[in-house]
Amino acid sequence: MLAASALDERNKALESVKRVLLEHRDEIFDANATDVEENRDRLSSSILHRLYFDQDKLDSVVAGIDDIVRLPDPIGRILEKRELDSNFVLERRSVPIGVIGMIFESRPDALVQIASLCLKSGNGIILKGGREATNSNRALVKAIREATRNTSFGENWILQIESHEDVDFILTLDDYIDLLIPRGSNAFVRHVMENTRIPVLGHADGLCSVYVDAFADLSLAVDVVTDSKVQYPAACNAAETLLVHEAVAGKFLPMVARSLIDNGVELLGDEKTRKIIDVAPATDRDFDTEFLSLKMAIKVVSSLDEAIAHINEHGSGHTDAIVTNNVGVRDRFFAHVDSADVFSNCSTRFADGYRFGLGAEVGISTSKIHARGPVGLAGLTSSKWLLYGNGETVREYSKGGGKSFHHKELI
Amino acid sequence: MLAASALDERNKALESVKRVLLEHRDEIFDANATDVEENRDRLSSSILHRLYFDQDKLDSVVAGIDDIVRLPDPIGRILEKRELDSNFVLERRSVPIGVIGMIFESRPDALVQIASLCLKSGNGIILKGGREATNSNRALVKAIREATRNTSFGENWILQIESHEDVDFILTLDDYIDLLIPRGSNAFVRHVMENTRIPVLGHADGLCSVYVDAFADLSLAVDVVTDSKVQYPAACNAAETLLVHEAVAGKFLPMVARSLIDNGVELLGDEKTRKIIDVAPATDRDFDTEFLSLKMAIKVVSSLDEAIAHINEHGSGHTDAIVTNNVGVRDRFFAHVDSADVFSNCSTRFADGYRFGLGAEVGISTSKIHARGPVGLAGLTSSKWLLYGNGETVREYSKGGGKSFHHKELI
Repeated sequence: MLAASALDERNKALESVKRVLLEHRDEIFDANATDVEENRDRLSSSILHRLYFDQDKLDSVVAGIDDIVRLPDPIGRILEKRELDSNFVLERRSVPIGVIGMIFESRPDALVQIASLCLKSGNGIILKGGREATNSNRALVKAIREATRNTSFGENWILQIESHEDVDFILTLDDYIDLLIPRGSNAFVRHVMENTRIPVLGHADGLCSVYVDAFADLSLAVDVVTDSKVQYPAACNAAETLLVHEAVAGKFLPMVARSLIDNGVELLGDEKTRKIIDVAPATDRDFDTEFLSLKMAIKVVSSLDEAIAHINEHGSGHTDAIVTNNVGVRDRFFAHVDSADVFSNCSTRFADGYRFGLGAEVGISTSKIHARGPVGLAGLTSSKWLLYGNGETVREYSKGGGKSFHHKELI
Repeated sequence: MLAASALDERNKALESVKRVLLEHRDEIFDANATDVEENRDRLSSSILHRLYFDQDKLDSVVAGIDDIVRLPDPIGRILEKRELDSNFVLERRSVPIGVIGMIFESRPDALVQIASLCLKSGNGIILKGGREATNSNRALVKAIREATRNTSFGENWILQIESHEDVDFILTLDDYIDLLIPRGSNAFVRHVMENTRIPVLGHADGLCSVYVDAFADLSLAVDVVTDSKVQYPAACNAAETLLVHEAVAGKFLPMVARSLIDNGVELLGDEKTRKIIDVAPATDRDFDTEFLSLKMAIKVVSSLDEAIAHINEHGSGHTDAIVTNNVGVRDRFFAHVDSADVFSNCSTRFADGYRFGLGAEVGISTSKIHARGPVGLAGLTSSKWLLYGNGETVREYSKGGGKSFHHKELI
C-alpha cells in the first residue's frame, strides 16, 4: 500500500518514473504531436502553447522530480507529542490524505508534476485531463504506471479517467476523492470550485493590489509596483490594481507612470488619478478584472482604511502588498487585509512556493480551510492521532477513579 | 472588527457573556420552559433531555466559558518563520477563519459553547437552531449580543437565522460561511454533510472497534474492551465492534463476555464466535451499525490484516484500538488503519479534546481535510503569510538579477 510505504521506496519509484519518462520520450513526443496536430485549428495559441510537451518541458519535469526526491519525507512527521499521564503518550503524525483528484486543461507537464508530488506524499491520484491532450496524457500515464509496477504498492496508485464523460463526472466522485487540484484557466478553476462538494485546493482569480501609503519611500514604491506588474504579467501573483494615498499621489503618480509606461503597461485611472496623470478612465469593472496582461488600474484613496476596504471588496484574497515606512500602518494593513499573502515593501510576485522556501509547490490556495497561500507538500497530508497505552481506561480518569491527566508537552 | 481584536478584549467579552447569562437566567429558563412545554408531546424523551436548559446546564456552560478564557490566544501565533534572504523575513501566522455556521438540533447549551469558542478565536458566527428550541435560542442570543454590544467590534459578530426557512437554507450560504459545525443526531449531521458545498467540521458516525490481537494481554484486554463499551455507550467514541484473533478467541471470549454481560451488554457474534460463547447471531448489518447503547457485535478474525480490512471497510474512520504486546503488530495496525484516532492498549473513550489536552473541544472530525480527530481551538483558525520587505523585487532574484534566497528557518 502506497500510503504505508517507506520514504526510500517512494523515492526509488520517483527515480524510476524519471528513468522511464526519459526512455519513452519519443513515444511521448509522438503522442503529443498527434494532439497538437488534431487540435491546431481549434485551439488558441496560448492553449496550444500549454499543450506542447517537448524536450524543454521534459527536462523541466525531470528536474522537478529530482527536486521532489531531495525533499524530506512529508509523511510520518510528529506534529504534536504529549504525555497525557505517566507513560501514556499521544502523538499526532502526518499521513497521506488518501486520494487526490487532478483535473487539468492541456498542460501534460502538470500531470507529471502533480503525480510526482502525490507519489512522494503517499497519495493515490485520479486524473482527468482535457480531451485535447488525450494522447499525451495516455502516454505519460502509461510510462508512470510502468515505472511503478514493480514496487510493493504496484501501479494502481495512479488512475486515469479516459471515458468520454466530460470533466464534470469527476466532480461527483466525493466518495472516492478527498481533495481536488484543478489546473487550467481561471474560468475552468471557478467552474470546478462551484460544481463539486469535494474540497478544492487552488484559486480561481489572482486579483492582487499594491497600496502606496502616505509614509512610503516613493522611489522604492516605483520598483515594487513595477516588478509586481511587469515581471511576469500572466502570473496569478502579478498586480492588477494600484492604490495610492492622496497625500503622495501628486508626486508619486508621475514617477510610477513613467516607469510602468516605459515597461509597456497600459494605465487606467479613476477620476482623482486622471487629475494628476493623463491616462484612460478606469471603470468600476476594471477594478474587478484580473487583466493577466500589461494593464493596470489606478485609484487614489484618502486613507489607509479606504485602501483596505477596496482590497477586501475587490481583491481575490490572493496577495496584496503595502509600501510604507510606518510600522503602525503596516501592522493595521497586515491585520485587516483578509488575503492569503500580505506583504510590505516588496513585490507581490514573491507569492510562490519555491520563493517561500516550501521546496515544491502543490498550488496556491485562496481557501481558508486546510491550506492557504502557497502550499507545499504538507498540503497533501492529513494527520492521525496515535495513543500508546498500557491498559488505561476512562473510568480510572473519571470522578472517583483516582487517576488524572498531567498533559505534559513532549515537543 | 472582531478578527483583529486583542486577546484581552475577547476575554473581557467572554466574561461579559458569562455575567449577562447569569443575570438573565430567569428569562432564559422561562423561554426554555416554553419550548419544552410546546414540544413535550411531539419529541422523544432523549431529544427533550437535550432541549432542557436548566441551572445545571447553565453552570456547565459558565464553567466552559471560564475554561475558554484561560486558554492561550489561538490567533496571531507564529506557525512558521523563515528568512528568505538577509533581513527579508516571512511569517505564517494563525488568523480567524472568518464566519462559522452553526446548525444544531435542540441543545441550547451547544449554542453557548460554540459561540464562546468563536468569540475566543475571533470568528463571526451564524446560528440556525431547531424550531423546537426557538425561544431558548432567542433568549440566549439576545443575552450574548447584549453582552458584547459595547465592545469595539459590537454585537454583529453573532447572527441568528430565525426565518421559517428550514435548516437547508443555511447550507446554501457558501458565499458567507467558511466552515459549518453541525450538532445533532447522526442522521442530522449526515444530512448536513451530504447537502452543502461548505466544509463541515464534524462526524456523522462513530463506529469504533477494538481488536484483541494474538499477542494481547488478555486481562488488560478485558478492561480495555469493557471500558470502551460501557463507560458511556451513547458517546461517539464508544466501541460497537469487538474483533478477536482466533489464536486467543477460545480463552478470551468467555473472559470478556462475562465482564460485558455483568455490565449489562447484549452480545451478538459471528459464526466462529458462537462456537465459543453462547450469544445471539450477528448479521452483516450489525457490523455496520453504531448501536450507541449497551450492545456489541463480535467477530473472530484469522489475522491482523483481516482485522485491519474489517475496520477500514466497516468502521467510520473515527477511533479504533488494538490490544497487543507486539510492537511490530501495533505499528502495522497504526500504519494501515485509516482512522482519525488509532490507539493501542487503551480505551477508545480517550478520543476527546479535553482528554487529549487540547483545552477545549470544537468537535471531532472524521474528514482528512483541515482538521482530523478531536479538534481544539486551532480548528477554528486559518493562517496568513506575512512578508516583511525592504524594496525587494523578483527581477533581482531571477536569472542575472544577482540575488538569491537562503531560506533560513527562524523557528
